[in-house]
Amino acid sequence: MTGTRLSIALLHYPVYDKNRQTVATAVTNLDLHDIARAARTYGLFRYFVVTPVPDQQALAERIGSHWREGWGSTYNPHRKEALELMRVVATLDEAKAELAESYGRPVKTVVTGARNRPGSISCPTLARRLQDDDQPYLLMFGTGWGITDEIFAAADLVLEPINGPGAYNHLSVRSAVSIILDRLLGER
Amino acid sequence: MTGTRLSIALLHYPVYDKNRQTVATAVTNLDLHDIARAARTYGLFRYFVVTPVPDQQALAERIGSHWREGWGSTYNPHRKEALELMRVVATLDEAKAELAESYGRPVKTVVTGARNRPGSISCPTLARRLQDDDQPYLLMFGTGWGITDEIFAAADLVLEPINGPGAYNHLSVRSAVSIILDRLLGER
Repeated sequence: MTGTRLSIALLHYPVYDKNRQTVATAVTNLDLHDIARAARTYGLFRYFVVTPVPDQQALAERIGSHWREGWGSTYNPHRKEALELMRVVATLDEAKAELAESYGRPVKTVVTGARNRPGSISCPTLARRLQDDDQPYLLMFGTGWGITDEIFAAADLVLEPINGPGAYNHLSVRSAVSIILDRLLGER
Repeated sequence: MTGTRLSIALLHYPVYDKNRQTVATAVTNLDLHDIARAARTYGLFRYFVVTPVPDQQALAERIGSHWREGWGSTYNPHRKEALELMRVVATLDEAKAELAESYGRPVKTVVTGARNRPGSISCPTLARRLQDDDQPYLLMFGTGWGITDEIFAAADLVLEPINGPGAYNHLSVRSAVSIILDRLLGER
């Protein structure tokens, strides 16, 4: 399964707000669930929830452990299976360090957003790489009004945005993650 | 744009609960937003929110009008554009009647769920039909533990479920809608 070399990270920091200020956004319950369930469906290795805010880390951990170990684990074992992939970390570097240790080699980072950027690679190209080489990848998604330019500049690869037939491309991050995982790893 | 002959309906009734009792589920704020944004991205004609419960209809209408006409419409015009596609109806028949009047011909209904069923058509097959003929289609998604067997039996077509590489297929309805719209109408 090629998905085992792919992990995703949902960044709550550093991201832009509506006025292009860099902020830390709040953790959203459904971001944890929907993205964990999509990650499990496509056989990913890890789903990192990145937030530097201790209260928000605690909230994400509490939701995760409710479904992994608490009452939720017997009420709905499918949620348990999904949320077992989730790790709450303070920084992107922490996620990269965990992956490097698991794989015994550094991951390549891939960033994606709603805007077209020069030098982006397509989903089919990344899909082929996931099939053909042993390189692990960490695919980053942003909350709020998107990941900061600094993170885009520092990433190893930029993945093309999802475009529909028209000009409107304001998908939720939950939708964007689902569609990109299907484009990369879904059966065609 | 082939999406203009496709509409979707999110059924809050009749659907199963965890114990396979037929129930009406509650409207969820993010179901309205995420699915409306995906519907707008892929150029759909309508997004119907189906619930027979008057309080739930009022809630969905209130959310819709906040973003279409209220304070939200100037705060975030992208939400306005998306939620303009949304219609709150009491029954599936009401949705079908509105579409028949708009198109001047009856729609074909397509139902989908998480389970494999005999006689299902694939996404590429439905995608070709959307390109090749003038027939309008209404694609139904369920909340709770899925659409009842009666609705499956009464539909014109059943669409195959989304399968990842493994056995786990417990996507949220928000993810499932997004992935199926991309498979039907996304640029490949």
